[in-house]
Amino acid sequence: MLSKAQSKHISALRTKKYRTEHAQFIVEGKKSVGELLKSNFEIEHIYYTVENKELPYLLAHVTKTEINAIDFGKISQQKNPEGVLAIVNIPKPTLFEWNNASYIALDSIRDPGNLGTIIRLADWFGTTLICSTDCVELYNPKVVQASMGSLFHINIHYVDLTKELKNTSLPKYAATLDGQSIYVNKYEKHAVLIIGNEANGISEQVLQLATDKITLPNKGNAESLNAAMACGILSAMLFK
Amino acid sequence: MLSKAQSKHISALRTKKYRTEHAQFIVEGKKSVGELLKSNFEIEHIYYTVENKELPYLLAHVTKTEINAIDFGKISQQKNPEGVLAIVNIPKPTLFEWNNASYIALDSIRDPGNLGTIIRLADWFGTTLICSTDCVELYNPKVVQASMGSLFHINIHYVDLTKELKNTSLPKYAATLDGQSIYVNKYEKHAVLIIGNEANGISEQVLQLATDKITLPNKGNAESLNAAMACGILSAMLFK
Repeated sequence: MLSKAQSKHISALRTKKYRTEHAQFIVEGKKSVGELLKSNFEIEHIYYTVENKELPYLLAHVTKTEINAIDFGKISQQKNPEGVLAIVNIPKPTLFEWNNASYIALDSIRDPGNLGTIIRLADWFGTTLICSTDCVELYNPKVVQASMGSLFHINIHYVDLTKELKNTSLPKYAATLDGQSIYVNKYEKHAVLIIGNEANGISEQVLQLATDKITLPNKGNAESLNAAMACGILSAMLFK
Repeated sequence: MLSKAQSKHISALRTKKYRTEHAQFIVEGKKSVGELLKSNFEIEHIYYTVENKELPYLLAHVTKTEINAIDFGKISQQKNPEGVLAIVNIPKPTLFEWNNASYIALDSIRDPGNLGTIIRLADWFGTTLICSTDCVELYNPKVVQASMGSLFHINIHYVDLTKELKNTSLPKYAATLDGQSIYVNKYEKHAVLIIGNEANGISEQVLQLATDKITLPNKGNAESLNAAMACGILSAMLFK
């Protein structure tokens, strides 16, 4: 059974304000909840439908409630609900510290699908992700969904990007349309790859802190690539 | 003014069956219609709202109708309609012939967003795109939208992939999870990069025709990358 209060609480978690106030967010789908259960995130409660009763990870989890498909449809935020949804506590942010490692730094990424895709990329390439404070919120349901569970496995920090970039001697590579060809120069693996806003690119104050401007030259006629795609291609070239 | 018949025709073009019967499809949005007008595609008609009256490319175009925002809202297929929509004739397929060039070959790509993104990639890298006949339809509105106008600028062919791959001596690189690392070997630029279905990868009969299996090794923990992302990264490594 799903109570009215529970249903209301879950629906309200769609808004950023309510998520922040209650320090909770929602994870939905078999794959994402499966990844969640392998992580250190604290799960408040899981709702599931009868078809998912036998999912091994659900058998092991204690605080759960079986609800019917109609009720599940009400709380689901997906087009094709899979019948598994978790309420998760937002962890306290940990202190950010630079290491001699690989970083992706996002300057004002606003599209939740892009942030989710880049989280998956950071997980793939084993990099730490740092986001300017005006990036889209990490616990936005679309970010969580697009990250396909990678959100639970990597270090992600929201920081004053201009300030933090001054605190490291790592090379800082700014992805721009007018930089050096990524195919020509030699780049360091332990470095910061900076990706800018979808419409406006990297802000002036962040760009000033970059050590190099890098570009993927186009061979054809397309004017640009999507920010997440550019991030994936440049990451593959830098962090190999 | 928008007549009922026109409105009905445009709405019906959302379905594949009707598009095929009438050999027409829809292009929507300022950027996409702008790219369309730079191409050789035959435009049947353009509908626009008063705010877009002064768009330079609309001034030059003859067969157009100004309609009000409410009518435009009815025919638009976008969340945030931009007030420009074109009805376009589907061109007759041209004969496919291999050249000594770069190719992306798609084996059963089903997601329209992925196909659109890959069309944009093919345009960026200057490759020809060949699709197995069971790929999602090229003129699906979501494909058209995701391609951001690149659909009008590159050669795209739907072919019997197994048959056609036998007709070329170009190297055929199959993107798989168990191939040689893309970082290690030397690859030819004039080659065919084969990308498989989102869930099942490359089919057995296509895989048998590949000369090499190639893989982007993961450095972190993510299990996979999205098909379009893998296509972008591998294209950047191969077609540089």
